[in-house]
Amino acid sequence: MLHLTFVESALERVPPSLWNHPSVVKKARQVGKHPSKILLDRTYHHRAMLKLPNAAKRGRPDILHFSLLAAFGTPLNKECLLKTYVHTVDDHLIHFNPVVRLPKNYNRFVGLIEQLYEQGKIPVKGPTLLKLEQGGFQKLIEDIQPSYVIAFSRGGRPKLLQEVLDCHLDENLMVMVGAFPHKHFSKGLLEFADDVVSIDIESLEAWIVASRIIFSYERALGLPEKRLNKR
Amino acid sequence: MLHLTFVESALERVPPSLWNHPSVVKKARQVGKHPSKILLDRTYHHRAMLKLPNAAKRGRPDILHFSLLAAFGTPLNKECLLKTYVHTVDDHLIHFNPVVRLPKNYNRFVGLIEQLYEQGKIPVKGPTLLKLEQGGFQKLIEDIQPSYVIAFSRGGRPKLLQEVLDCHLDENLMVMVGAFPHKHFSKGLLEFADDVVSIDIESLEAWIVASRIIFSYERALGLPEKRLNKR
Repeated sequence: MLHLTFVESALERVPPSLWNHPSVVKKARQVGKHPSKILLDRTYHHRAMLKLPNAAKRGRPDILHFSLLAAFGTPLNKECLLKTYVHTVDDHLIHFNPVVRLPKNYNRFVGLIEQLYEQGKIPVKGPTLLKLEQGGFQKLIEDIQPSYVIAFSRGGRPKLLQEVLDCHLDENLMVMVGAFPHKHFSKGLLEFADDVVSIDIESLEAWIVASRIIFSYERALGLPEKRLNKR
Repeated sequence: MLHLTFVESALERVPPSLWNHPSVVKKARQVGKHPSKILLDRTYHHRAMLKLPNAAKRGRPDILHFSLLAAFGTPLNKECLLKTYVHTVDDHLIHFNPVVRLPKNYNRFVGLIEQLYEQGKIPVKGPTLLKLEQGGFQKLIEDIQPSYVIAFSRGGRPKLLQEVLDCHLDENLMVMVGAFPHKHFSKGLLEFADDVVSIDIESLEAWIVASRIIFSYERALGLPEKRLNKR
């Protein structure tokens, strides 16, 4: 089983210090919600974010949207061999039912996540598709209890993806992919990793790293062959 | 060189028959444009599209957005070994300067493409980043003059991706990926392909197929090793 975690994802609601900023008020009015109930988004709140601490790593729900879509439609996920989790920059965790069909439209995705922050789970009644909880990355580690944890970071040890994964196919492997636009993992987070690996000389976007990890894991498992032979 | 073409992409402006539909008028008013100048989008125009011919393959600019983002950030593109082209369901072609930085925000991407349909190229002056022209897939084939063309379709010959690509590394290889939500390539289009290949037992989304093709091509070239050794 591969446990894919998007770490320090640039996803949060607009913090109280920005509720009165004109760009926030305007966007909130457009969607008919209180500023406290909308997601921070640099596309709309760029000016409001100028004085925000750690702004380079915040306010990019689109990165998570692409990354989740790169994961959920894969054969590995369809075979129930992939579990995907989100850890956010403000220490929330999102758990997904692997059968969830996420909205492809960005505005609907944002609406869904705003609803999730409001309700704590979706749907409120019946089998849960998305669940939000407070808790740092430590909590996720305790939930998953991985046998091995690999973080992907440009600052890591240069290594080919296939060589990284091949040794851990029979394990409860967890991988950490940063879902933020700039900078690196916070130092405390890398302490959870058994190995920190760099698969390219340049920084790659989270959805590109995630899709490559998943496909390499599938290839190492021989999953493409197995699925083609099912015909 | 790998020439990646997104074919029959579900991208077009709202057709004249729908200009007066309430859902189209409403969306056009929201963005301050005439209905003739906005993109057809099932998220907003679902009711308007109910009677549209071939509707199952139309009105999904989001598919192309994800697919382009899956291509442009890759090492293959950074090394100038990838060229990406779009053919649309209404026979337009889009050419990209490989250095273009596409908007990650969906609404901005839509705005950019609407501007492209209006102006024919972006920017109007200076080095072109995006260029739109009328012309069917035939025109693209004539422009690229590929030595070999592979179409990816669930109806094709079952084959592992790495086996498909390995034989064509020294060529001017062109791959065809459908960027539409349902159904198959139109029959006429498959006549341009030297081989039609299926890489999974289920239909995979365009951005997943594209990212796997690019990564497999990189692996076949030994590009990950080469780039890591540059450190």
